Amino acid sequence: MKKKWLFTPGPTPIPPEALMAMAQPIDYHRSEDTVALIKDVLEKLKHVFQTENDVLFLTSSGTGGMEGAVANLLSRGDKVIVIRSGKFGERWGDICTAFGVEIIPIDVTYGNSVDPQAVETLLVEHPDVKAVYATLCETSTGVLHDIEALARLTRVRPTLLIVDAVSGLGADDLQMDNWGVDVVVSCAQKGLMTPPGLSVVALNQRAWEAVERSDLPKYYFDFRKAYETGLQGSVPYTPAVTLLTALQCALNRICEEGIRRTIARHSRLAAATRSAVKALGLSLFAVSPANTVTSIRLPEVVDGKAFINLMLDEYGITYAGGQSQLSGKIVRIAHLGWMNENDVIVAISAFERGLVEMGYDIPLGAGVTAAQEVFNGGSQSQKKKS
Amino acid sequence: MKKKWLFTPGPTPIPPEALMAMAQPIDYHRSEDTVALIKDVLEKLKHVFQTENDVLFLTSSGTGGMEGAVANLLSRGDKVIVIRSGKFGERWGDICTAFGVEIIPIDVTYGNSVDPQAVETLLVEHPDVKAVYATLCETSTGVLHDIEALARLTRVRPTLLIVDAVSGLGADDLQMDNWGVDVVVSCAQKGLMTPPGLSVVALNQRAWEAVERSDLPKYYFDFRKAYETGLQGSVPYTPAVTLLTALQCALNRICEEGIRRTIARHSRLAAATRSAVKALGLSLFAVSPANTVTSIRLPEVVDGKAFINLMLDEYGITYAGGQSQLSGKIVRIAHLGWMNENDVIVAISAFERGLVEMGYDIPLGAGVTAAQEVFNGGSQSQKKKS
Repeated sequence: MKKKWLFTPGPTPIPPEALMAMAQPIDYHRSEDTVALIKDVLEKLKHVFQTENDVLFLTSSGTGGMEGAVANLLSRGDKVIVIRSGKFGERWGDICTAFGVEIIPIDVTYGNSVDPQAVETLLVEHPDVKAVYATLCETSTGVLHDIEALARLTRVRPTLLIVDAVSGLGADDLQMDNWGVDVVVSCAQKGLMTPPGLSVVALNQRAWEAVERSDLPKYYFDFRKAYETGLQGSVPYTPAVTLLTALQCALNRICEEGIRRTIARHSRLAAATRSAVKALGLSLFAVSPANTVTSIRLPEVVDGKAFINLMLDEYGITYAGGQSQLSGKIVRIAHLGWMNENDVIVAISAFERGLVEMGYDIPLGAGVTAAQEVFNGGSQSQKKKS
Repeated sequence: MKKKWLFTPGPTPIPPEALMAMAQPIDYHRSEDTVALIKDVLEKLKHVFQTENDVLFLTSSGTGGMEGAVANLLSRGDKVIVIRSGKFGERWGDICTAFGVEIIPIDVTYGNSVDPQAVETLLVEHPDVKAVYATLCETSTGVLHDIEALARLTRVRPTLLIVDAVSGLGADDLQMDNWGVDVVVSCAQKGLMTPPGLSVVALNQRAWEAVERSDLPKYYFDFRKAYETGLQGSVPYTPAVTLLTALQCALNRICEEGIRRTIARHSRLAAATRSAVKALGLSLFAVSPANTVTSIRLPEVVDGKAFINLMLDEYGITYAGGQSQLSGKIVRIAHLGWMNENDVIVAISAFERGLVEMGYDIPLGAGVTAAQEVFNGGSQSQKKKS
């Protein structure tokens, strides 16, 4: 009687009504219904982005939206600051390099978040940089960056702040308008509880002015075309219709809960997970952990890959392991999207049982209890403890 | 009791087992099952492409694959021939221009297919052109181009033949290996009976050598990365997992039927549709019509847009109208993908009834009878008649 549980930071579980919507006969992408669908999705996304700016979408993974946020915003020979604290910050750098943009990297030790002071120093040294490329939640390490602090630096300068919120959107707070973030990129298969294949992007007025000046080559990811057609409920190219119908279902859930409460829920799930980790005597990998995913340093005696495999084979549980140099050293448990307290209890309980089965000595049940205490005590009680 | 019928050249109807597969809980894209899924899909695509070359896939619309077939094959300052006989041939030119590639266009009157002689003349005049960009079925006009004849010209030269088979693949014959086509681009939502969001591309050895030389900027659509990871059942970025599961179901159907019989079926459906059009005293828009879609010149007294709307509102039928300058002037009936004889009878019967309801005098039933005759007589009988 196998039953699977997905605790990866994308794809995340899909609500049942979204799964059912995708099983309906497909509609023409120029139909009145699809026009209404696209308009509704783009309107509801504004609530999730916490912005009055219009949102555009692309049929691609989140990386397609990231490429667009380079190709549409910059010109040949431009110089940008790239914050690299893991695989996804590095991806910003790689895309810029592929498009002939000069990067000034800030390399942050994995597990740490960037010091805004270091960014300010570089901004002062290089007043001609066109943009700072940052990451809300660096999914590969579980680190949350202080986007609000970075925005305080860029909004008083002509420099744009361009944020990869691929995994963070809807889980970690990102107040695009209040903070003054210029560009936010995200995608469907994380906090938006939709299968992969859609990227979503919001730009403010300053960013659109940069789009006008940009001369880097772009066609499929042309933001202007996606934006202008999107406002009419249309598209330049055939969109992923079934994924849009699923996204609408998921957005209905978020809009009903309200984005502030959605973020608070993720904050509670993350706090409980962290509390459980500490109760088990283990340590967190991220110094400033995100609400999206909790990365846990595995004891050296535990073979990380064997542990991940055991969890899948014996418990039906998929956690994410570490990537590249973190492979085998950390486990990442996502509490992202269509998740609540009961899911987190399953994630923690299985984690405990798996470690014991691997021969590692931890107090079975201690993590679960710690999580329950966070849930029953609420976030106030958690704050007092930590 | 509304019932919808989709006769657009993409998205096309999805087989029920593919719809059901998409309603299953989503899987992690690094799971063993997804690795096996990707390998299976890529292997089965070779059969549809009629090639021994490995196929790669991208999470994007077909246009993303087209952009990749420019950005990965060419370098700055390269010169190419672009065959423009409608919206999609023009798209090749637009992408090349966006990437700074010089184009030598061959403009073909809408409704006609390119004269290979004209292409040969240009190839002789410009022996330095790197590629010819062509279209198998120009979906906007319903025209089939003679790709085999074009390949005879390019395969004896260093020039690559790069074919947009977005709508044509699996409906119109395209023997990549036998004919010597270098690059074929297609996507999910046409002959492959899958919702939009996946592009599929095959390259031969000559094309891969050009990829090595290419210096145009690319990141998300990097063919080399997609190809190398794909061979391992992996991906560089989170793929559209649910669409891959649907594509596997659809490919199972095509592989069971066999690509030669799949194409023969489309040929039969197209012949019946054309025969019906003639029996109604109407004329075809395409001089060399494709198996994918039949474009019909509407009588001038019939308001094309009103006709399309009537068909949808009263009959639940979606045909495609004309695009740009053909808007209101033609109707396009696709017989593409998960379609058989009964579907075509519905398409023709409703078409007749709609015209009569619009006040146009045609012999009700004549088209249906003509189609039935083609089906019952087989393609041989059809050949004798025309």
